[in-house]
Amino acid sequence: MPHYRDTLRADDPAAIAALVAGTGFFNEEEVGVAASLARERMEKGPESGYAFLMSEHEGALLGYACFGPIPGTASSYDLYWIAVARETRGQGVGKALLAECERRIAAEGGQRVYVETASRAQYAPTRAFYERSGYRQEALLVDFYAPGDGKVIYVKALAR
Amino acid sequence: MPHYRDTLRADDPAAIAALVAGTGFFNEEEVGVAASLARERMEKGPESGYAFLMSEHEGALLGYACFGPIPGTASSYDLYWIAVARETRGQGVGKALLAECERRIAAEGGQRVYVETASRAQYAPTRAFYERSGYRQEALLVDFYAPGDGKVIYVKALAR
Repeated sequence: MPHYRDTLRADDPAAIAALVAGTGFFNEEEVGVAASLARERMEKGPESGYAFLMSEHEGALLGYACFGPIPGTASSYDLYWIAVARETRGQGVGKALLAECERRIAAEGGQRVYVETASRAQYAPTRAFYERSGYRQEALLVDFYAPGDGKVIYVKALAR
Repeated sequence: MPHYRDTLRADDPAAIAALVAGTGFFNEEEVGVAASLARERMEKGPESGYAFLMSEHEGALLGYACFGPIPGTASSYDLYWIAVARETRGQGVGKALLAECERRIAAEGGQRVYVETASRAQYAPTRAFYERSGYRQEALLVDFYAPGDGKVIYVKALAR
């Protein structure tokens, strides 16, 4: 069973960058963003707007998620990042991690969780993952990322 | 005819805050965000990702807009802010300012302009403004801001 840790350590930004890069789903710029959000959380604490959840087992990082309340909304949250180490895929780590994020968001009063991904074929497994987890596609922004590559917005309303 | 200025001055963040507050369309938190983006632009320059356009006439600020390329996209832009001084509404200042933003975005290679607003009744004039200006509603995120108050996403594809 993975253990969840929500306080970041000095080596986490690098560990997150390595994990995210290893998935093959993110480009160099995105890997940099993932690490920079972790550094921002460490510098500013909860005021950063980013909460992290590290999924670990026997000291190894299996996956992580980053979420937070969306400024200007009453009770909507964004799941900014969720990633599972390549060698750990298919073992339910992501599903359990996502459920733990939702549990914590609901405990803070969050009512809706939004997540964005791309419409291109590479992200079909990502979209299937969200759909299996109870997320519903609410919008498709055609050609958002590039011609032929849209942005898909999923939402899940949490039980009160 | 308004004059357009795209270099910010030291007194602009305060002038922007006063203009935005005066419209009656934004709350205190949003007014703070508007001013902070101007300060960020002044500190970091184009690297901030925010371009500003000030519409002036005989030294008076009639309106302003803030836009920039959306990170991670090939040629999509966000119109983050557009506001017209309350006493200047209905004179075409916003329409001309929006057209000037689009001209500059197209000149930089931007192909799609996104703008977000709220679905609640207070923003009906805002939505009508975008629709008159050639924007098409591409998404409605129900209950995004609060129960009964959704987020509307508009897009306009610019002519090449």
